Amino acid sequence: MTERSQNTTGDVRMRGFARRHTVEAALDVIDALLEAPLRSLDAESIPLQQAAGRVLADDVVSDVEVPGFDRATMDGYAVVADSTEGATAYNPLPLTVLGDSFPGRPFPGSVARGQAVRIMTGAPLPPGCNAVLPAEWIGDSGDASRVNALAPVSPGKHVGHRGEDVVRGATVLERGRPLRPQDLGLLSSIGAGQVRVVRRPRVRLVVTGNEILPSGSSPHGHCIVDANGPMLTALAERDGATVSFPALVPDEPDAILKALHDDADVIVVSGGSSVGAEDIAPSLLGEHGELMVHGIAMRPSSPAGFGRLEHRLVFLLPGNPVSCLCGYDFFAGRAIRALGGRAKAWPYHSIDASLARKISSPIGRLDYVRVRIVDGRVEPLATGSASVLSSTTRADGFVIVPADSEGFAPGASVKVWLYA
Amino acid sequence: MTERSQNTTGDVRMRGFARRHTVEAALDVIDALLEAPLRSLDAESIPLQQAAGRVLADDVVSDVEVPGFDRATMDGYAVVADSTEGATAYNPLPLTVLGDSFPGRPFPGSVARGQAVRIMTGAPLPPGCNAVLPAEWIGDSGDASRVNALAPVSPGKHVGHRGEDVVRGATVLERGRPLRPQDLGLLSSIGAGQVRVVRRPRVRLVVTGNEILPSGSSPHGHCIVDANGPMLTALAERDGATVSFPALVPDEPDAILKALHDDADVIVVSGGSSVGAEDIAPSLLGEHGELMVHGIAMRPSSPAGFGRLEHRLVFLLPGNPVSCLCGYDFFAGRAIRALGGRAKAWPYHSIDASLARKISSPIGRLDYVRVRIVDGRVEPLATGSASVLSSTTRADGFVIVPADSEGFAPGASVKVWLYA
Repeated sequence: MTERSQNTTGDVRMRGFARRHTVEAALDVIDALLEAPLRSLDAESIPLQQAAGRVLADDVVSDVEVPGFDRATMDGYAVVADSTEGATAYNPLPLTVLGDSFPGRPFPGSVARGQAVRIMTGAPLPPGCNAVLPAEWIGDSGDASRVNALAPVSPGKHVGHRGEDVVRGATVLERGRPLRPQDLGLLSSIGAGQVRVVRRPRVRLVVTGNEILPSGSSPHGHCIVDANGPMLTALAERDGATVSFPALVPDEPDAILKALHDDADVIVVSGGSSVGAEDIAPSLLGEHGELMVHGIAMRPSSPAGFGRLEHRLVFLLPGNPVSCLCGYDFFAGRAIRALGGRAKAWPYHSIDASLARKISSPIGRLDYVRVRIVDGRVEPLATGSASVLSSTTRADGFVIVPADSEGFAPGASVKVWLYA
Repeated sequence: MTERSQNTTGDVRMRGFARRHTVEAALDVIDALLEAPLRSLDAESIPLQQAAGRVLADDVVSDVEVPGFDRATMDGYAVVADSTEGATAYNPLPLTVLGDSFPGRPFPGSVARGQAVRIMTGAPLPPGCNAVLPAEWIGDSGDASRVNALAPVSPGKHVGHRGEDVVRGATVLERGRPLRPQDLGLLSSIGAGQVRVVRRPRVRLVVTGNEILPSGSSPHGHCIVDANGPMLTALAERDGATVSFPALVPDEPDAILKALHDDADVIVVSGGSSVGAEDIAPSLLGEHGELMVHGIAMRPSSPAGFGRLEHRLVFLLPGNPVSCLCGYDFFAGRAIRALGGRAKAWPYHSIDASLARKISSPIGRLDYVRVRIVDGRVEPLATGSASVLSSTTRADGFVIVPADSEGFAPGASVKVWLYA
């Protein structure tokens, strides 16, 4: 026995979890935390140009009409509709052409029966007119100042009315909406240069593990290179967060405790989440904050946990990268999305497809099974190990086997959540 | 007749399109352009941290194994599996404990039959061992230097083998793949600090229209505020582009021609795309480059066109914002996605649902119909006007009526493309 191992013997606690929470119970705890008033993030005002994908903090009410004037929706002649009644190719009705109306350059006068103004799509309809006679129903009179109407046009035809797009006082977009490209267009059209959106959740990543080298290193010796830091950063940013990840954190209580106190809305810890000798974070959280859930009846990610430390939500994710991904998606991601005003549900689309081979799973445990879609059928990947991250890069997505199921038979229709 | 209108009479061409291309024919022209070798963008090397969502330019082959050593996948005791054969609670087999193996801090010696090393998940398996006996199958001997095996363990059990995640020489990710969060993790684990990705297409937006005020203005008089600039910027960025949009461009040939020559892979022009007096861009493109398609049998967006100017792809989109959105998604977006190495298909998900009211559409024209999903049924929106952008913000998505269809009857199952 070496001297070092003697020294550490007393620290080596190899007990398992006394009891595991069900996934449902764990999600209920998160949702209760998210309903507390302190958990809704405040709003910020940002330039419209940066608002794509952000979540609207307030209803947007227009104080203008769009358009602010009646306008032509076709190229043609602005007329009093009555002037054209009875017009046909055999009964051309003459119209006196007064001038032109261009977009942004309206005709400066008004128009009476028997008169017309050449008008371009988008140009203001001159006062007195109530219709646009399309150019193809116009006949040449041989005189530049007169044309002939060859067909009748009904009142309002080919006219876009003031306010047809947006009326003053209308709620054009509702709070909680993630902004689409066309929403930005609409906001711009009502004169919004700034938009109030929900502030992004601030996430502090705490990646621990003395065997971990920082991303960008080459793996060597008995060390591995951090996979979880880059993965969790991309996941949290996908879910609307800003991520702070200054450096790896050594497996030492002081260093971890300091990181847990960093300025953030959510702390996500990777590694050391279980109940072994080097699993420091759970007991630290229990001592200095509240460890609300620890140990979950699922595979992978059973040694996950979470709780809070003052105003911070703290998620403890296993270091095994597949566990880390699964635990993020089930728990941390849910909270991050909700804090930022987004839907709690996974941001994955699902398809239903038929299972090529059976999936077995014990009753009492939820399983997260990586699968490929091969010729339209669902192939579970052979590897079940939570340390094999490449199983999630070879996979097209995953199937969930609920805790009350023993799995699925070949040919069963299963829901596949597609990684994106 | 005013003097100004006299001066412009000769310029006012109000003819329609001589002939419209089908949407299919237009897409074939784009796809042929994209197949030309000059159209594939080059690669660039970027830090891994910025690579989420970017498209891999080359296959990635690992020159390392992950992990680089055999390691424990559970907390327990590293043993020679044979030492535990026949062990039960009634037949405990003694093991001499030599020390500990921690992640990144391996046990410095080797292990023989009858010996054991306490080992943590992720720690290197000492030489000589071939299995990990989980902690719960270990009995206390009363002596710190000895424990009892209470169950047998088979060779290889609870061991993650060297290379189980990635073997040296394996292609871990293939070119053309948009990078997922877990891909970044895997790339990091093989020591990739930089990634070669397809360069982003550079898009120059040319928003024209003398009636248009820049985004951020309040609408006033007979002017409207630019909706297409912010919308097209967000659309092109969604599709992987970087967007240059320095300012609005006046409806003047010199200004438009200069903008068409700007340094970009793709020029997207909004407004003035038709055949009227103020539709300058199509004739400019025809004169100085190649106007390949102009006028498309669809609604909205029938006055769209495209072609090329030297190495640039040029898309002419109508100024009406719904037409602009539709024309972008059908034509410009397809090219931008493909140039950046992405799938040509729309980045929208679709669902099949039942139609609440009929949709009518003439044979020979493709229709883009905005719809809402109400109680699981598809409701076409009442407005058909291409100038009403709010129809696309009230809508959940759109239904396409192909040119050879007269539409769909109530109750028909239709595919709805969901705006995201």
